[in-house]
Amino acid sequence: MTQKKARDFGIQIGSLPCGPSNSLSDIDGLSFGHVTLSDGAVQTGVSVIHPVPNSPFENKCAAACHVFNGFGKSVGLMQVEELGQLETPIVLTNTLSVGTASSALVRYMLAGHEAIGETTGTVNPVVMECNDGGLSDIRGLHISEQHVLEVLGMHEKAFEQGAIGAGTGMVCYSLKGGIGSASRQVSYGKRSFTLAAATLCNMGRLPDLLVGGRAVGAEIEALRKSSLAHEVDKGSIIMLVATDAPLSSRQLKRICVRAGTGLARTGSHFGSGSGDIALAFSTATRLPHESPDNPVMTVDVLHESAMDQLFRATVEAVEEAILNALFASRTTRGKKGRIRTSLADWWPKL
Amino acid sequence: MTQKKARDFGIQIGSLPCGPSNSLSDIDGLSFGHVTLSDGAVQTGVSVIHPVPNSPFENKCAAACHVFNGFGKSVGLMQVEELGQLETPIVLTNTLSVGTASSALVRYMLAGHEAIGETTGTVNPVVMECNDGGLSDIRGLHISEQHVLEVLGMHEKAFEQGAIGAGTGMVCYSLKGGIGSASRQVSYGKRSFTLAAATLCNMGRLPDLLVGGRAVGAEIEALRKSSLAHEVDKGSIIMLVATDAPLSSRQLKRICVRAGTGLARTGSHFGSGSGDIALAFSTATRLPHESPDNPVMTVDVLHESAMDQLFRATVEAVEEAILNALFASRTTRGKKGRIRTSLADWWPKL
Amino acid sequence: MTQKKARDFGIQIGSLPCGPSNSLSDIDGLSFGHVTLSDGAVQTGVSVIHPVPNSPFENKCAAACHVFNGFGKSVGLMQVEELGQLETPIVLTNTLSVGTASSALVRYMLAGHEAIGETTGTVNPVVMECNDGGLSDIRGLHISEQHVLEVLGMHEKAFEQGAIGAGTGMVCYSLKGGIGSASRQVSYGKRSFTLAAATLCNMGRLPDLLVGGRAVGAEIEALRKSSLAHEVDKGSIIMLVATDAPLSSRQLKRICVRAGTGLARTGSHFGSGSGDIALAFSTATRLPHESPDNPVMTVDVLHESAMDQLFRATVEAVEEAILNALFASRTTRGKKGRIRTSLADWWPKL
Amino acid sequence: MTQKKARDFGIQIGSLPCGPSNSLSDIDGLSFGHVTLSDGAVQTGVSVIHPVPNSPFENKCAAACHVFNGFGKSVGLMQVEELGQLETPIVLTNTLSVGTASSALVRYMLAGHEAIGETTGTVNPVVMECNDGGLSDIRGLHISEQHVLEVLGMHEKAFEQGAIGAGTGMVCYSLKGGIGSASRQVSYGKRSFTLAAATLCNMGRLPDLLVGGRAVGAEIEALRKSSLAHEVDKGSIIMLVATDAPLSSRQLKRICVRAGTGLARTGSHFGSGSGDIALAFSTATRLPHESPDNPVMTVDVLHESAMDQLFRATVEAVEEAILNALFASRTTRGKKGRIRTSLADWWPKL
Repeated sequence: MTQKKARDFGIQIGSLPCGPSNSLSDIDGLSFGHVTLSDGAVQTGVSVIHPVPNSPFENKCAAACHVFNGFGKSVGLMQVEELGQLETPIVLTNTLSVGTASSALVRYMLAGHEAIGETTGTVNPVVMECNDGGLSDIRGLHISEQHVLEVLGMHEKAFEQGAIGAGTGMVCYSLKGGIGSASRQVSYGKRSFTLAAATLCNMGRLPDLLVGGRAVGAEIEALRKSSLAHEVDKGSIIMLVATDAPLSSRQLKRICVRAGTGLARTGSHFGSGSGDIALAFSTATRLPHESPDNPVMTVDVLHESAMDQLFRATVEAVEEAILNALFASRTTRGKKGRIRTSLADWWPKL
Repeated sequence: MTQKKARDFGIQIGSLPCGPSNSLSDIDGLSFGHVTLSDGAVQTGVSVIHPVPNSPFENKCAAACHVFNGFGKSVGLMQVEELGQLETPIVLTNTLSVGTASSALVRYMLAGHEAIGETTGTVNPVVMECNDGGLSDIRGLHISEQHVLEVLGMHEKAFEQGAIGAGTGMVCYSLKGGIGSASRQVSYGKRSFTLAAATLCNMGRLPDLLVGGRAVGAEIEALRKSSLAHEVDKGSIIMLVATDAPLSSRQLKRICVRAGTGLARTGSHFGSGSGDIALAFSTATRLPHESPDNPVMTVDVLHESAMDQLFRATVEAVEEAILNALFASRTTRGKKGRIRTSLADWWPKL
Repeated sequence: MTQKKARDFGIQIGSLPCGPSNSLSDIDGLSFGHVTLSDGAVQTGVSVIHPVPNSPFENKCAAACHVFNGFGKSVGLMQVEELGQLETPIVLTNTLSVGTASSALVRYMLAGHEAIGETTGTVNPVVMECNDGGLSDIRGLHISEQHVLEVLGMHEKAFEQGAIGAGTGMVCYSLKGGIGSASRQVSYGKRSFTLAAATLCNMGRLPDLLVGGRAVGAEIEALRKSSLAHEVDKGSIIMLVATDAPLSSRQLKRICVRAGTGLARTGSHFGSGSGDIALAFSTATRLPHESPDNPVMTVDVLHESAMDQLFRATVEAVEEAILNALFASRTTRGKKGRIRTSLADWWPKL
Repeated sequence: MTQKKARDFGIQIGSLPCGPSNSLSDIDGLSFGHVTLSDGAVQTGVSVIHPVPNSPFENKCAAACHVFNGFGKSVGLMQVEELGQLETPIVLTNTLSVGTASSALVRYMLAGHEAIGETTGTVNPVVMECNDGGLSDIRGLHISEQHVLEVLGMHEKAFEQGAIGAGTGMVCYSLKGGIGSASRQVSYGKRSFTLAAATLCNMGRLPDLLVGGRAVGAEIEALRKSSLAHEVDKGSIIMLVATDAPLSSRQLKRICVRAGTGLARTGSHFGSGSGDIALAFSTATRLPHESPDNPVMTVDVLHESAMDQLFRATVEAVEEAILNALFASRTTRGKKGRIRTSLADWWPKL
């Protein structure tokens, strides 16, 4: 059965064209993996985004991050901010498993690079998270280093979406959350670039949900027998943006800021207890780990006046990625028999 | 003729109740002034917000600011960020008149406080701006120190909105922009507080305009004979938030971040050439200039768990303030005969 | 044998009086622990600072952090920055063991708080690190969760210094580094407060070392048979500041900024490959986890004009803590027979 | 009479070689001007640094800034931070004349660029300041737009130092302050670059002054008949760094952070009432205002591993620039007959 996305329900976000797969897969060289633990009270998992075909350690990707609300436990962002570089795959998992995932990612990088901790410095693992304690026994710490090493070994070309991997136990706008993705293409005369977003969606309250500007959450609230208006946003969202446009880390930070604009369009007000974070990287701007003989390198970079189109692409891709997460994530029963319903199930009734 | 606001056109933003005037005037102790220069190619002005009945220098207001996109020339924000304090009225004007307004505000503060520059330190003037060069001869530098001193002398209780004061020459979503305002009330058991926003609106492109989630900009584009899709966002928006809730500067900064969420809901993607900035202050948290005998002061502060309601209030108030600016600003002919039409004029045709 | 500190060598830093123990122990309520692994190529460990007698989760400490150079992998700082709160003990260890330490700290908090991940949100573990790969087999990942749980169970009242715990494998200014501490007292009329620093010291190159302004590093270089001028600063320093003065998180962030001034006085230029980070907390400003019935709390806070003395205290305490780490850390032989000599051993020859 | 600098008094800071003039003049293409008002109670002025031979508006310089303590009123830094660009000369003056200087700089840029405010956007004037109210009648607002336009017209090749221009009324470590400069050369194989600092010095208390690590301030205190220990640091320092190395704005921000290290070495603890700010720019990294046909530009940028030498250069140049300001500024009598003595006058007695 083909998984449905927002477009399958007639929802059109923005005006820019999307890429062939309308997902992270549209950025050349990326690959992915998900490990899913879905069994009764255990609804959790791990996902990985490999930013380049090989390890990014020797040839790092330009990168940046931005924190909209810092009630979160992601690791690795401080060094991304300082150096503007991503040097490991990005691992996503539940909040309390960040340490385990971080350890495993370190082991994976050590295995691949004998110089780390020996003839060169250390490595900066990037692990991002949301709290899946609503549907899953998060206190059980069910993610093992083995799960993380398993996911790191995956290199799927298609980016699967929905309640899988780290998205397994997500709750979003009081509905079933998960992982979603979308992409956009921008062109400048003869040059064109792709920008894609992936979002791990665990934020928001039902009454706030907007779908393409329509107050769908309030409509669902009206159909339900009991209100969810009392729910507090203790969720979080991780917004990843990848592009093949050559951007500096400063420009990528500007991109990150616009991810929040896409989030806002879906109804969130960045809840006090929500870790709302964006990380962006460019596959076109690569930075060698080793110092070259000539310390002056030549790099491509986009003129600032070309940023507006990429900003628009970011807003559209993030908004659609969130909606895709909602539509693609199937209704799930988890801890204590709690059920979170898919937006796809509500949609025909609206 | 009574000026119309978004609500007069049947537009309802959010779910929280608004205050009696649905504007900054709902915060006790604030007062305002506008000086308007509207004559042919000169479409500019100055506005003032007095945060407290007397000068805030002796008893400063807790304050914070946040920059969404820093293509702007506002002054005074660095010290607000460091000390978390607002110690002057807030002056709004056009971009190239910031220096003049700053000089005049310094003169005004010197006149009121003999100690400044003599027995105490200096004073931090807060002047914020948007570029009205689309409709006005901004190169003419038509704002004089006298205009600014005049506006500083005003203490109106009602906050007038539309294409007046600093809003005179604004262009917003390719329509006539200006100044708007809105307010919200939040309650926690027996305690209740008011939060109000005022926005100087000069940002956005017509095709992007959203009104309550509806793609009104695209609808107007369809009705026009020529498209404005080629326009670049070189605008800016200043978002002021005032509240009588007792908040620390850290909490006020969190409020500022949510102002951008309200902005995003109206369709902006924080254009590269737009100075998009928020400043928030509390009239309930006052900080004495002079060091008390006992250096330990006792202050009220809201528990963090109460912030979510204020965040929601901020998003709603800012979104509605922007729409109020659009509806309240009348069609204006300015420099080179350029006309910017009021949203209120388009509305009946939609 | 009593361990010697900078003062035992006649070195006087600054003019403020120090507390009775001239260490973190001077702040009432703190307790500590170190687990040391020192055996041939394994020279590493874990240290803990408990900020209050019981778990800080229910009554958090006001806190802030500042990153001077973000080439580091500490975790938990994002949430400290957002909420201005510290809710766990602070764990220090080597760079590649941060994940393990983080997992163990999460387990420790889960064991102590049944509500975490169940009826309340998650917990934000604070783990900070330096790279001890110069003297220790850091690739071996010798720190286990059991080591971390062991150190978390310690509540020593005296803060032991030198090449112990996380300081075991440190290298500082090419000499043997480790953990140091110092304290200062400030008074305002009848009120007085204590501020103390602890530093995990792993930064710097020998030729740069300054001791009380004297170019001791260059003097030692001159005495050595081979120069260390070619060494690159790939070190890191963690600077912790604790105080019993009632400070807001904004004020604590200002304190953090001054920690770098103390660091600069010892000769560091914040090397590109060094994670130079400060974290400060107040034991006098406590913030309840649970929302009170009345959301408006009353808190004590120091008037801003009283900050200068605390800034001075910070600079002095951090500079002296670094020197204490150097003097207290004994000459150590580690990985591949590498020897790092104690400053205490060089001192008589200078 | 030749003005004396720190080196003329036998003071050697650091180990890197300095450039031919040991000042900003060593960076090719820079030019300068000072207007000095020194007459009784009026001790103030304006200084200008032109970063390139022609206006930087069409071809901007990569730039960054960093605020150590934000008790300051400099303008233009927000846009430098966002875009990483400097597009005007840098004007320095007294705190309360920032508005006037800003207006004049806008006029100057309008005169040189017909497009500003007409066919392109606005312009971001950079004006930085210190409070000279200790020696000068700062309330008198003696700087006129004419003074600023006059200084903007100057293009001297040598950078004059001491109590001139904006430095006229400065007080630094309770001694006579002013403007100082120094430079350093770094080399990487066949490539070499110059980095130079200029500092407008108005911060610090006498007892804190360190000269090359020596507690010269305390020595002078001991010689004086009355102590200055009660003085509060309400000063400020502006630290400008220019380099011909090709650096990104992120790298220039890292440079700025190290300027504070140089400042710390002279004894400052970044006083609460002091505006301590750094701005750095590269003359080798130029960014065109107009969008090129191909939005992808090729730029040179230094590999990150080469930054450490530039960090060292920054620390050395800033420390020496501050000392040069102290030695070069002659004893001055100002407002109310107050006298601030030159360090050069004290030196022979130490």
